[in-house]
Amino acid sequence: MEHLSLGLVGYGKIAQDQHVPAILGNPGYQLRAVATLGPPCPGVAHYTSLEALLAEGPAVQAVAFCTPPQGRHAQVRQALLAGKHVLVEKPPCASLGEAMDLVELARAQGVTCLFAWHSRFAPAVEPARQWLRGRTLRSVAITWKEDVRKWHPGQAWIWQAGGQGVFDPGINALSIVTTLLPDPLFITAAELAVPANHQAPIAARLRMADAHGVEVSAEFDWDHAEPDVWRVVIVTEDGVLRLEQGGAALFIDDIAQPLPAEAEYPSLYRHFRQLIATGASDADLQPLRLVADAFMAGRRTQAAAFLD
Amino acid sequence: MEHLSLGLVGYGKIAQDQHVPAILGNPGYQLRAVATLGPPCPGVAHYTSLEALLAEGPAVQAVAFCTPPQGRHAQVRQALLAGKHVLVEKPPCASLGEAMDLVELARAQGVTCLFAWHSRFAPAVEPARQWLRGRTLRSVAITWKEDVRKWHPGQAWIWQAGGQGVFDPGINALSIVTTLLPDPLFITAAELAVPANHQAPIAARLRMADAHGVEVSAEFDWDHAEPDVWRVVIVTEDGVLRLEQGGAALFIDDIAQPLPAEAEYPSLYRHFRQLIATGASDADLQPLRLVADAFMAGRRTQAAAFLD
Repeated sequence: MEHLSLGLVGYGKIAQDQHVPAILGNPGYQLRAVATLGPPCPGVAHYTSLEALLAEGPAVQAVAFCTPPQGRHAQVRQALLAGKHVLVEKPPCASLGEAMDLVELARAQGVTCLFAWHSRFAPAVEPARQWLRGRTLRSVAITWKEDVRKWHPGQAWIWQAGGQGVFDPGINALSIVTTLLPDPLFITAAELAVPANHQAPIAARLRMADAHGVEVSAEFDWDHAEPDVWRVVIVTEDGVLRLEQGGAALFIDDIAQPLPAEAEYPSLYRHFRQLIATGASDADLQPLRLVADAFMAGRRTQAAAFLD
Repeated sequence: MEHLSLGLVGYGKIAQDQHVPAILGNPGYQLRAVATLGPPCPGVAHYTSLEALLAEGPAVQAVAFCTPPQGRHAQVRQALLAGKHVLVEKPPCASLGEAMDLVELARAQGVTCLFAWHSRFAPAVEPARQWLRGRTLRSVAITWKEDVRKWHPGQAWIWQAGGQGVFDPGINALSIVTTLLPDPLFITAAELAVPANHQAPIAARLRMADAHGVEVSAEFDWDHAEPDVWRVVIVTEDGVLRLEQGGAALFIDDIAQPLPAEAEYPSLYRHFRQLIATGASDADLQPLRLVADAFMAGRRTQAAAFLD
C-alpha cells in the first residue's frame, strides 16, 4: 500500500497532542485535510465541516474523528456512506445504539472501522497479554483514581447527563482489561456516587464476571489527590501480574518488566493501516457496553456537591 | 417437523397464564418437563432445576425460560451449550452484555434463539406494519401509562437497581415501535424521574431519532389512574396510524380497523417453531439497548417517595 490519504475532523486538544503528531510521524499516511471549527492545522488544507471536506477537498481514503462523542454518529455515518475508512476516538459515540449502528454500516460498506481504545496500545498491554496466555485466572482488580480538577478543569459537559463522569477515564481501564481477558465480562453489581449538584458519577464501584466465574472488580474515583493511580492487578494460579500508570509499567510478582517507550497513538495508527490493508475492522463495543450496563444496573448514591 | 419436545424453566405467573396454555394449545409442541422451585406443572414431569432436567429428564429439543431476567443468563447458556433451542421471556437478561453473549453463543452453537418480545405479536402490529410499508413517516409518539399498584402490587424488586422500573412496561412499547420502523432508533435525550425512596424510575420521557431524522418521543408513567393508556401514534405523509391498548386496537385516521383476536403467546410459539424449522434466530437487542442507553444518557430528577 502506498500513502494512505487521510482527513481529520476536530482539531482540538487530543488531535493536536496525539493524532496529528502520530500521523505526521508515520510515513504511511498523508494528512491531506482537516475539518474544524477552531484554528486550522498548520500546513494542511482547512475546511470548516466534514461536508465541505468531502465535497470540495482533496480525495481522502480515510477519516479520523477527534470531535466529542456527542454528535459524532451522524458525521461518521456520512464518511462511511462516502466509502471512507474511519478511525473514531474513544468513546466512539454518545450511546451504544449509535456505536452499534456504525459497526453495521462499516460492514455493509465494506470499509474499515477502528474504535480507538488507545489505552490498549499502552506499552504493558501486549506483554501482559502474552504472559497471561495459557495461565489460569483467579481474579482481577482495577483501581483507577485521579483528580478531575487536574485532568478536566472547568469542563462542565463531563458532569452533565451523557457526560459519563468518572467513566471517562474508567473506560480506559475497561478497554485494557477486556482486551487482556479471553472472554466477555458482564456487570453483576454497580454502585455510582453522583454529586448532589451534578448528573454524572464522581466515583463508581463495579463487580463483573465472565461466563466461567472469573471475578473482576473496579474502583473508579475522580476526587483523588496526587499521585494518580491507574492500576490493574491480575491474580493467576502461578503469579500476579500488575499494570501501573495506565499500562506504562508492568510488574510480574512485583518485579518490574522491561517495556518499550510509550507510543499509544503511533501504535493505533499503525494498527489502523494494517486493518485497512487486510480489509478488517476493530470496533469493539465491549467497553462502552459495560458502561451502559453499569448505568442500567447500578445503584446510585448521592455524594457531596462537587465544585471545581 | 414432528412434535417439538420442549422443556420449560420457571413455572410462575407468566408461565401459568401464557406460556403453558400457548404450548398446550399448539399440536406442534410436546411439553415434556418443567423445572421450577415452586409447585409443579400438573401432568408434566417435574424437576427442581434446569441441571436436573437436562441430566435426568426426558430428551428435549428446546427450552423456554420464564424465570426473572436476573440469573437467567447462566441458565440459558447452559441450555445453549447442551444444544437446545431457546425461547427467552422479555427482557432477555439483566444486562445488555448478557443478552449479546446469548446471541453469539446461539449462533456459535447453530441453534435458534428467540427473545420473546411478545407485544410484537399483538393483533394490531402486523396490520400496522403492512399499512406503514412504503409510507413516509413524519413522527412517532408513544404514551404508555398505567398504575403500578394494579399491575405490580408489593413487588419490591421492580424498584431496586436493575429492576428498571417503568421501563418494565415501557420496553413493550419500544419492542412494538422498533419492529414497525424500518431503521434503528437512537436515544437523543432522556429524563428519568426516580422516587426518593427507590432506585428505579417511576416515569420517563425519551427522545429518539433514526439516522434519517424521524423523531420518536415516549412518555412512560407508572403512577397513572385508570384507564391504562398504551398508545402509539405514527404520523405519516398520508394518514395517522394509531395503536391503542398495547396493540389490541388499531385506528387509521381515527377509523377502527378489524383485527383478529388477541393471541400474543400462541403467535410467539408459532414463530419459535418456524424459526427452528428454518434454522433462524430472532434475538433482537434493540428494545433492551434503548433502555440501557436511556439509563446512560438520561437526566435524573427526583420524584416524591412512592409507597404502595
